[in-house]
Amino acid sequence: MSERLSEETRALLLAPLIENGWHPVEGRDAIAKTYEFATFVDAFGWMTRVALWAEKWNHHPDWRNVYNRVEVELTTHDVGGLTARDAKLARKMDTLAG
Amino acid sequence: MSERLSEETRALLLAPLIENGWHPVEGRDAIAKTYEFATFVDAFGWMTRVALWAEKWNHHPDWRNVYNRVEVELTTHDVGGLTARDAKLARKMDTLAG
Repeated sequence: MSERLSEETRALLLAPLIENGWHPVEGRDAIAKTYEFATFVDAFGWMTRVALWAEKWNHHPDWRNVYNRVEVELTTHDVGGLTARDAKLARKMDTLAG
Repeated sequence: MSERLSEETRALLLAPLIENGWHPVEGRDAIAKTYEFATFVDAFGWMTRVALWAEKWNHHPDWRNVYNRVEVELTTHDVGGLTARDAKLARKMDTLAG
């Protein structure tokens, strides 16, 4: 079961993500990042790999793709804010982006 | 080579799409539609099939996915408006959505 991150855990989990280009979303308890790839094939190939993990973990991103760009937003709708599951998926996205 | 649709061609090409749930986008020469599927697997599976056609035709959508929903917007950036390529991809999307 997921619960919203406490201030302490939040700082610990988010710091490395912020360093990797993630940023808090204004007005909502969510984090966002825009990935840019060389081509559509690269962008959608990455999305496909992320999709398999998202489904496996039953935690799905809000994402928008335009050609070689993917804008991602993560939050945990069940609890109305960030949980450890968002940090986990964000980390996986970064790893898969190489 | 694509060119922007004339008024006459536009009416002919867009009518069946409008009937299928596509609508003009306010303030831009583009069309949009929101698809709703049963699950994320269905939504992303459909996106994957569309992606192969989009790449084959070198014409890519602006699309946003949240779980079982996909919001699509089509236009032809090269010419700053709708072309026959948008109508073709829209039709393919509808066919693939079954």
